[in-house]
Amino acid sequence: MNNETYIKQNFKETLVNINGEIFSPDQAKISVFDRSFLYGDSIYEVTRSYNGKLFALDEHLERLWLSADYLSLKLTITKDELKKEIEKTFKTLNLPNCYLRIIISRGVGEIGLDTKKVNTNNVVLILKSFKTNPIEWYEQGVHYIVAQTKRNPKDALNPRAKTGNYLNSILAFIEAKNVGAFDAVMLDHQGLVTEGTTNNLWMVKNNQIYTPSLERSLLKGITRDMIFQVAKLHQLSIQEKDFDLKELLSADEVFMTSSLKEVVPIVKIDEQMIGSGKPGTLTKKLHQHYLNYVKQQTQN
Amino acid sequence: MNNETYIKQNFKETLVNINGEIFSPDQAKISVFDRSFLYGDSIYEVTRSYNGKLFALDEHLERLWLSADYLSLKLTITKDELKKEIEKTFKTLNLPNCYLRIIISRGVGEIGLDTKKVNTNNVVLILKSFKTNPIEWYEQGVHYIVAQTKRNPKDALNPRAKTGNYLNSILAFIEAKNVGAFDAVMLDHQGLVTEGTTNNLWMVKNNQIYTPSLERSLLKGITRDMIFQVAKLHQLSIQEKDFDLKELLSADEVFMTSSLKEVVPIVKIDEQMIGSGKPGTLTKKLHQHYLNYVKQQTQN
Repeated sequence: MNNETYIKQNFKETLVNINGEIFSPDQAKISVFDRSFLYGDSIYEVTRSYNGKLFALDEHLERLWLSADYLSLKLTITKDELKKEIEKTFKTLNLPNCYLRIIISRGVGEIGLDTKKVNTNNVVLILKSFKTNPIEWYEQGVHYIVAQTKRNPKDALNPRAKTGNYLNSILAFIEAKNVGAFDAVMLDHQGLVTEGTTNNLWMVKNNQIYTPSLERSLLKGITRDMIFQVAKLHQLSIQEKDFDLKELLSADEVFMTSSLKEVVPIVKIDEQMIGSGKPGTLTKKLHQHYLNYVKQQTQN
Repeated sequence: MNNETYIKQNFKETLVNINGEIFSPDQAKISVFDRSFLYGDSIYEVTRSYNGKLFALDEHLERLWLSADYLSLKLTITKDELKKEIEKTFKTLNLPNCYLRIIISRGVGEIGLDTKKVNTNNVVLILKSFKTNPIEWYEQGVHYIVAQTKRNPKDALNPRAKTGNYLNSILAFIEAKNVGAFDAVMLDHQGLVTEGTTNNLWMVKNNQIYTPSLERSLLKGITRDMIFQVAKLHQLSIQEKDFDLKELLSADEVFMTSSLKEVVPIVKIDEQMIGSGKPGTLTKKLHQHYLNYVKQQTQN
């Protein structure tokens, strides 16, 4: 099927802003000389709206700027300019529940690795309606595998930066999909747990909540930060601690967090049931606390 | 500067073939929903022409298909179809000395990692005039640094596959450019030499030519293969052998190979002169043998 037809069929209620101009999805195109197309040489963020408000936008922009630092990617747009474009596009789409992807490519340049020969950034915003996540994820929990693919080491390409280089996660995700699993636990080269392909991982043991420390190869998730906040607010015992697969598999509860999926119970890893094989009490409690927190933050 | 103006100024004598249709460079655009733009989820090859003939095209296509395997990237074009498009574009551009980049993106799909929800591949060919490499590279040699950035491990993203995820190399290249060097030696996590950012590395010691084995994290270069062929043809002693930085720095000669740059002497690494600090005898001999081999292969 040609791309325009495919896009028209699959991207309804979608708008794309490219360098300040709004396009329908089938018309949203970028030069093949763009470095994100050629090399994945770009940074990105994803968030969603609740109640007609984009959630935690400032935190996401903050992290976008940090990702740029990791890549020595010179930004030619300011945070205020970017926010203005986001708001403009969000108002034009005019849907209460939106998905927002912000992509900043280093730009168009001479073919070759040299980042000094690059024109200004290409800034692309994709806004589309956000479909509610299936209730089964939360009520029944999901199944992870342990990927053979190891998480990128920090000194090769630091997962703290959200970049357009996503093959490491894609390879792990393919492994999961090949066996019908939801996603994959990624280990580092020391055998320690890092994160899922697009989410942070947590375990509960004896009513203590643990997540791998930022010393490991993983993203400092914005939902991860918020889980720390809400847990402390509700006097739940939470801390960073590195752990290996064996510890993970013997946890009472395991869950993942992400901006789009919030808090999802993981009830099976490979062939191993976690705890009772049902979503854990603390996991459900944290999800509820998180949703209340979101509600509070997005109230008019 | 807007992209179209920038491209018009910087990409002369260039044509782009997108899915069979030929475009001028400023009109060559791809959907922002293409997975190479979003995730670097693509494979590529680069070659050049000599004497009006694209060099080693079959070998490059062979490797492109191998790269697809590494990524479980389903190809929706055949080698024959691809060759036909390459030849069509090459004839249209009609220049004796060309640079060719073949990019196959997994395609346009729903946003998300799932590779099962993807339309057909996007196949992009960039053909442009090839500027002769500066003679100084060969006569005086070039300066490398040792990158702090470590080569991607094979079990995170195997450098045997040529993919659209190039940040690992870009980070090392930025390190080199920051100190005015030509390129960077990349080590693995065991401290062994792997390759340059876009080239294979070699050393000469007591008239023996060595290059790291394919057990290491590196590309099986097509020029690398040919260097083995021409060395054997001329009874030069050549073999695969893993070595660390200390061995590299104490070599009599060091050089790099790539399809675009052929054989380039490396005369300095960080602050260390290699051998006499001038291009080595065997390096120059190998380059000459290689050029003769190319000539022979591209004769009418």
